[in-house]
Amino acid sequence: MKLKLYDLAGAEDARRFSPPCWRVKMALRHKGLDVEEIPWRFTEKESIAFSGQQLVPVLIDDDKVITDSWEIARYLEITYPNRPSLFGGEVGEAEALFIKSWCEQIIDPIILRIILTDLFTHLHPKDKAYFRESREKRWGMTLEEFASPTDETISALQNALSPLRKTLERQPYICGSKPRFADYIVFAAFQWARAMSPIKLLQPDDLVYSWRDRLLHAENGYALSTLGYPV
Amino acid sequence: MKLKLYDLAGAEDARRFSPPCWRVKMALRHKGLDVEEIPWRFTEKESIAFSGQQLVPVLIDDDKVITDSWEIARYLEITYPNRPSLFGGEVGEAEALFIKSWCEQIIDPIILRIILTDLFTHLHPKDKAYFRESREKRWGMTLEEFASPTDETISALQNALSPLRKTLERQPYICGSKPRFADYIVFAAFQWARAMSPIKLLQPDDLVYSWRDRLLHAENGYALSTLGYPV
Repeated sequence: MKLKLYDLAGAEDARRFSPPCWRVKMALRHKGLDVEEIPWRFTEKESIAFSGQQLVPVLIDDDKVITDSWEIARYLEITYPNRPSLFGGEVGEAEALFIKSWCEQIIDPIILRIILTDLFTHLHPKDKAYFRESREKRWGMTLEEFASPTDETISALQNALSPLRKTLERQPYICGSKPRFADYIVFAAFQWARAMSPIKLLQPDDLVYSWRDRLLHAENGYALSTLGYPV
Repeated sequence: MKLKLYDLAGAEDARRFSPPCWRVKMALRHKGLDVEEIPWRFTEKESIAFSGQQLVPVLIDDDKVITDSWEIARYLEITYPNRPSLFGGEVGEAEALFIKSWCEQIIDPIILRIILTDLFTHLHPKDKAYFRESREKRWGMTLEEFASPTDETISALQNALSPLRKTLERQPYICGSKPRFADYIVFAAFQWARAMSPIKLLQPDDLVYSWRDRLLHAENGYALSTLGYPV
């Protein structure tokens, strides 16, 4: 039976931008699992109420409902152990949690400030008031004050990526010779940007650019085939 | 036959402060290997000339000479596969390289600015002119200009540690339930500080403090038993 994934969409059904959803979609393809991706908007809380919480991704696998991108990856790893591994063992999983934390604490917030204005433009009209209100409350400032689509912020992002760049001097992926979940976590942040903003985050002579490019083309070009701006 | 390690020392033979050497010393204990630690100073280039380069750590294992902390860890993992693993497999090793890059790019430079004045004080007198000249050339400024033992820099360090702190909310070590090489890489930066400077880098209510404390007490309190300041 095909799996189902509730996946955050923008104004168009095809514009999918949530980083946690992107992690899961790459993980599902890594495991070779077929999935139906159901477009969902921030304000459709009632349609995922069955999951006992209000956020996507929500994965349905037969009679099981799993939420939270990290828990979904762990679920897939345990449930489909004979498919390619997402973590490469216990230590690989533990260290992937560090990389997740780095991405969420350091990289995602900088990308958000760069793409926020464009992201707001591409939200579904029915989500805009909710998004503005919830984020302005969370950040204690207006979207316009929080947004920073400047060369300086892009430069700060490129500096913040230095640990990844240094790693890629020795190996093609964070996880070594092949991409795995830790790669997908960081790649998901770039898919978020690509879906919503024409701003170029990386230069072609950057090892991080080449790494992103390899992931765009991975799994038969799946990520590249989705709606977004040229990178 | 006992292994030998050339290990950077300060004014006293017992004051061992090199982060790459600390990584290796923790790795050797992790593998349960006995080692003779030979004190070495920056200006004793001729005594390690047999290694074909000028930096410590230099490990001698029977007829083999291995340099560079990362290469030494890989050597130990391959040569002593039946001892506790340093990496937990290929993916664990690949992700540990990311954590090494993060530590070297982000954490080590901040700690260096905090401890530099104290570090210079504790160098062996014969190393001081070499250290000053080589570092001032590398940094393009005097040691006194580079040093920043301020509350603001300590606060910047604590902020930079946020990915580690977040990880430790879910597991006791970077590598999961037990410490492995990625933990030793980051811990080594704190041993560097502890050996040379009385400045407190962490507060006791910080999860990073507790993690460091567990590593100070690991392997029968080996790291804690060495010469340094109270943390």
